[in-house]
Amino acid sequence: MPTEPSPIGRHHALLTEFRRVFKAGPIEGGLLAIEGPRLIGEALRSGYRIQKILFSQGGLEHHGTKLLPQVSKHATAGVADDRSFASAMDSEHPQGVAALVEYVPASLEQAFGDGTAPALVALAAGLQDPGNLGTLLRAADAFGATGLVALTDTVSPFHAKAVRASAGSVFHYPVVAKASAAEVIAACEARGVALLAASARAGAGPAGRLDGPICLIIGQEAAGVPRELQRAATATIEIPMAREIESLNAGVAGAILLYEAARQRAGR
Amino acid sequence: MPTEPSPIGRHHALLTEFRRVFKAGPIEGGLLAIEGPRLIGEALRSGYRIQKILFSQGGLEHHGTKLLPQVSKHATAGVADDRSFASAMDSEHPQGVAALVEYVPASLEQAFGDGTAPALVALAAGLQDPGNLGTLLRAADAFGATGLVALTDTVSPFHAKAVRASAGSVFHYPVVAKASAAEVIAACEARGVALLAASARAGAGPAGRLDGPICLIIGQEAAGVPRELQRAATATIEIPMAREIESLNAGVAGAILLYEAARQRAGR
Repeated sequence: MPTEPSPIGRHHALLTEFRRVFKAGPIEGGLLAIEGPRLIGEALRSGYRIQKILFSQGGLEHHGTKLLPQVSKHATAGVADDRSFASAMDSEHPQGVAALVEYVPASLEQAFGDGTAPALVALAAGLQDPGNLGTLLRAADAFGATGLVALTDTVSPFHAKAVRASAGSVFHYPVVAKASAAEVIAACEARGVALLAASARAGAGPAGRLDGPICLIIGQEAAGVPRELQRAATATIEIPMAREIESLNAGVAGAILLYEAARQRAGR
Repeated sequence: MPTEPSPIGRHHALLTEFRRVFKAGPIEGGLLAIEGPRLIGEALRSGYRIQKILFSQGGLEHHGTKLLPQVSKHATAGVADDRSFASAMDSEHPQGVAALVEYVPASLEQAFGDGTAPALVALAAGLQDPGNLGTLLRAADAFGATGLVALTDTVSPFHAKAVRASAGSVFHYPVVAKASAAEVIAACEARGVALLAASARAGAGPAGRLDGPICLIIGQEAAGVPRELQRAATATIEIPMAREIESLNAGVAGAILLYEAARQRAGR
């Protein structure tokens, strides 16, 4: 447990640091900014170390007694007035407590799993909406993907909104940011993992195609998927629909295909 | 085609009317407010009648030539300066054109289909987020649900944000708002339709259970589902997950179950 959180003024360096890491979104110097008691609890339960923790006055009253004993004594703890606290957050409805967590993104190797089960990699290509990416992060967690990889030109999976939408999934399995198409293609080839492109418009149905080791490209639209990746894909998978709709959003489409992959693997 | 849109001042009754219908969300006097060229195009293609159409200056230049010839000559058309236009919309990034469409919500009967295929009713119970409901509307469309029914105490499927998130699905199949639990239970019983509750925590897997006539209760959380409906459900269906996560959001969970129902019906 850290020493009693010290009251800090509105120009205090701790506020500036939280503001900066939240704004930067992606990991900054090994720190991930998260907000709210549930996310922080999830990080602690998953064994992550909190380096700094910041409360609002109200947040300290509500969450201090429960959270502080779980935080290392080496952590810095501060409490700011509600307005200063809110100014350092990126959410519209701050929940009174935020933390900077020591977080090292996974390597591409880790995202392909340890070989005990066939690889199931969700590859986000060109997604721009952090909420959609958060949906995908959560579905990858729920359906046992070995890892999630986000390409460059894709919103970071460590964007505060994506982490929030994922409800802490980012702490449960390997998540990789800023991978290049070339290194993903090489990793698939080296491991005999099939690279499959999800498509809203044309392709084969998923039946019988998702139970082997696969890396599933999920893009918002064809334009978002780098051409070399499209060329390298061995098949295009379409979600069969009763009516041709303009496509489900990428988060939902990805979640359905990950569900389907889990179903096929379990032989249900 | 209506007469050339007349320029209107910022206190014009047309602006007030758009503002009111957007705010009210649900159908007001048989009118549904929609915004953006794609949604309006979808309404027109689906045979709905536009009663009033409002452009911003920029919107008229961009969309007037394409949209106006498709609109009945009986429609009222106006053009407002960009700022007045934006003030009447509910979206953060208005797209320069909005319309009031004559829309009659479906009856509960219609949502159960005409009997040519087994009923597949998505029943939204207690959802509060219009984006989640929009996801569900779109999935119900994509996977051939016979209808979507929203209970009272559930955000309206005609909320502007839900309609927008659904990308026009609200024009493609029967959508019902403000149904009571009692009338849904009675409708299921009268038709031999199984009432199934989707659950994040406990229940049977969906395998082999979604191919008959069903009404699937999709709630954000147990608290959102009226108790009489929970009691009336003949089974609880859980989406099998690799790891117990706190639950996917209701839109995504509903989309997966509707996908699974379509898969079972097609015998894939």
